[in-house]
Amino acid sequence: MINSRLKADLIHVSQYGRNPVHKVSEYHQLTPYNGVNRVTGSLANKEIRDYAIDCLKECGLKLTIDPFGNIFGRKEGTEKNKGSVMSGSHLDSVINGGQFDGTLGVFGAIEAIRRLNKENFQNKRPLEVAIFTGEEGSAFGKTLLGSSAYIGYTEAEEALQIKNKQAISLKDTLKNIGYQGKIRKNVEDIDYFIELHIEQGPVLYQEKIPIGIVESINGILWIYITIKGKSNHAGTTPMNMRKDALLAASGIVQFINSESVKLSKTPGSATVGTVGQLNVSPNAINTIPGIVELGIDIRDKKIENINLTKEKLLKMIGQLKDGLKLKIDYNIATFLPPQPLSQEVMEIIRESAQTIGVKYKFMNSGATHDAQNMARITKTGMIFLPSVNGISHSPLEWTNWDDIEKGARVLTNTLKLLSNK
Amino acid sequence: MINSRLKADLIHVSQYGRNPVHKVSEYHQLTPYNGVNRVTGSLANKEIRDYAIDCLKECGLKLTIDPFGNIFGRKEGTEKNKGSVMSGSHLDSVINGGQFDGTLGVFGAIEAIRRLNKENFQNKRPLEVAIFTGEEGSAFGKTLLGSSAYIGYTEAEEALQIKNKQAISLKDTLKNIGYQGKIRKNVEDIDYFIELHIEQGPVLYQEKIPIGIVESINGILWIYITIKGKSNHAGTTPMNMRKDALLAASGIVQFINSESVKLSKTPGSATVGTVGQLNVSPNAINTIPGIVELGIDIRDKKIENINLTKEKLLKMIGQLKDGLKLKIDYNIATFLPPQPLSQEVMEIIRESAQTIGVKYKFMNSGATHDAQNMARITKTGMIFLPSVNGISHSPLEWTNWDDIEKGARVLTNTLKLLSNK
Repeated sequence: MINSRLKADLIHVSQYGRNPVHKVSEYHQLTPYNGVNRVTGSLANKEIRDYAIDCLKECGLKLTIDPFGNIFGRKEGTEKNKGSVMSGSHLDSVINGGQFDGTLGVFGAIEAIRRLNKENFQNKRPLEVAIFTGEEGSAFGKTLLGSSAYIGYTEAEEALQIKNKQAISLKDTLKNIGYQGKIRKNVEDIDYFIELHIEQGPVLYQEKIPIGIVESINGILWIYITIKGKSNHAGTTPMNMRKDALLAASGIVQFINSESVKLSKTPGSATVGTVGQLNVSPNAINTIPGIVELGIDIRDKKIENINLTKEKLLKMIGQLKDGLKLKIDYNIATFLPPQPLSQEVMEIIRESAQTIGVKYKFMNSGATHDAQNMARITKTGMIFLPSVNGISHSPLEWTNWDDIEKGARVLTNTLKLLSNK
Repeated sequence: MINSRLKADLIHVSQYGRNPVHKVSEYHQLTPYNGVNRVTGSLANKEIRDYAIDCLKECGLKLTIDPFGNIFGRKEGTEKNKGSVMSGSHLDSVINGGQFDGTLGVFGAIEAIRRLNKENFQNKRPLEVAIFTGEEGSAFGKTLLGSSAYIGYTEAEEALQIKNKQAISLKDTLKNIGYQGKIRKNVEDIDYFIELHIEQGPVLYQEKIPIGIVESINGILWIYITIKGKSNHAGTTPMNMRKDALLAASGIVQFINSESVKLSKTPGSATVGTVGQLNVSPNAINTIPGIVELGIDIRDKKIENINLTKEKLLKMIGQLKDGLKLKIDYNIATFLPPQPLSQEVMEIIRESAQTIGVKYKFMNSGATHDAQNMARITKTGMIFLPSVNGISHSPLEWTNWDDIEKGARVLTNTLKLLSNK
């Protein structure tokens, strides 16, 4: 039985934004219990931040909150002129999400500092914990919002003005929950970044390997498409006089799937393509859909594949538009190229896993992470833990406690080794 | 210029439930102004009922409200033992609907009584105005709710317990707006029913004919389908390990369309098939859709065609279920067979049109109407007026004022002739 403080923290924070079991709606009948809802700016998002702040203070870390709501806790090192070793992740969730996505990396980093404090470890380099705002993009339609603004990939003003579904800006959202800081943190002070995260895919679980060492993070493209047809009475409008936006959208859903299946079978690729979001208006059984909005997610290890699917999609949209006399607009909300991680950090993680005596595997990350942004500015590594049945972004997301303990040990050792470099 | 009281009434009531122009959301950009929102039980639905009640009282009619919220106004006739002539329609609307759908038939019937009163016409049979609850089914997912309960086609208790999207029963909804009456009205007292309505299709407008005499109302089938796949991370779940509910749903959208197009080209049919409603859960761009709900509307003049599409759809669902390892449930919410109308009433409407000197055309109704239910219990007719560009269930729904005046005259004359039979 593992009874670490990390386990206690993860169990405690899994209640923030969780719908009570007895309120399970029809939409969630497939799950044994409800997921967590902690999109950026929600009450639950504030509550979990408050709890994390308490933990950072308890560890004796010095706090900074930047204008994008990113939270940093810092422990100075014994040597003055060296850059810091930073570790962290995010506390926001998707809608009806799982309890370990993001929280593991934040409370894992806090646990590592706690363990190092306990053994009176003297770190040469400063050690830092990072909590990034809006990794999921469920509130603001843009993934990695906080880390993008932090590294300057998104302009500060642009990031702060982006609006959520209630048309409230990131700036106001953060102000409302008391998390808009004043001082921007200098990215040049950081020499290493490590993120502990659940794999969110099936590889480690199927192969019964507790530790994944990430070599590269897949590139990601998010396209939102709006199709404008003509809303009309379903009973009286002859089939040949319709401009059905949902009919056009259904073609896009099938196209994205078939293209992705095809590409995923080519050697060296790791293609996935999904239409996860689709809104119909007016959405009445007896009315031909006038407007449909789709959200498309395309990812790959190879940038050529992402570009190929994008070009084919835009060509297909052009044909649909002309064929069905519809108006179709699109908007690329996110594009991150595939990102290789630091060879040096990978070796340190491997050394840590070997020291502790746990099996590991070098692998690719299908999901996007804040580490993808951090890798643009500093030497970055990621440690993956197995997701039971490969499930994530779902209330059924789970990682076993003994794997979490192994991950905490590998992370603690990695921070130890890096802080002495 | 036509400046009838009917025109004034229709302009007045078109404001109930109308979103202000300056609040046009992105979803409604294709329309020059917003539609009306008067689903059963809404504040706007109460307000338009209140106004209609005032008009009925002004005409000296005796009011009855039944347990289903149906409103009746009655003017006794000079002969005691004859059944009444009833005319009316509904005041609820679809979401973002048009301003004449239903209101024309209610305020048209009121106008006819007003004109007959003005000329001191002595009706032998009683004359009645009917306002039926929940014709559209936008609130309760079931079309013709009030008239079905009135004629006993739906059991009283079942109708009152049916719940809207906020899980409030019809009974409570009606109580909340003060429209649940106590006394059920006897269907056997009625000898004739006439409904004035916009065509909601393109035929009369294209052929420049002001009056349609309906011979038959298409049969209608509403099926709701729930597809349960598996919600999972869009970036990490390989294409061959997915159970994507939206992918399955997109196949159903295309199937309904292609089958309906095919059948609509066969002689003697008037097939239309639409997926107007589609809800995705959790509906996040980076999550594979776990659950999709679809609402399907199938209509035809021939019952064989409706049954054929239904059977093919259920077969297709079975194959999808097995092929993609999904769980698919369906529920038939509405089924009304095609309904021929009364030959006797058609002749009276034709005579009225001839007397007034307007062109007319015998035709089929693609839309469902309360008249479809009334035709099961009494001799029933319908008068159609042209819909500009065939548009309905949309803010762009329009009928020209001179056509409305012609309709009012034909209806008044028809009631006059029938009440003397």
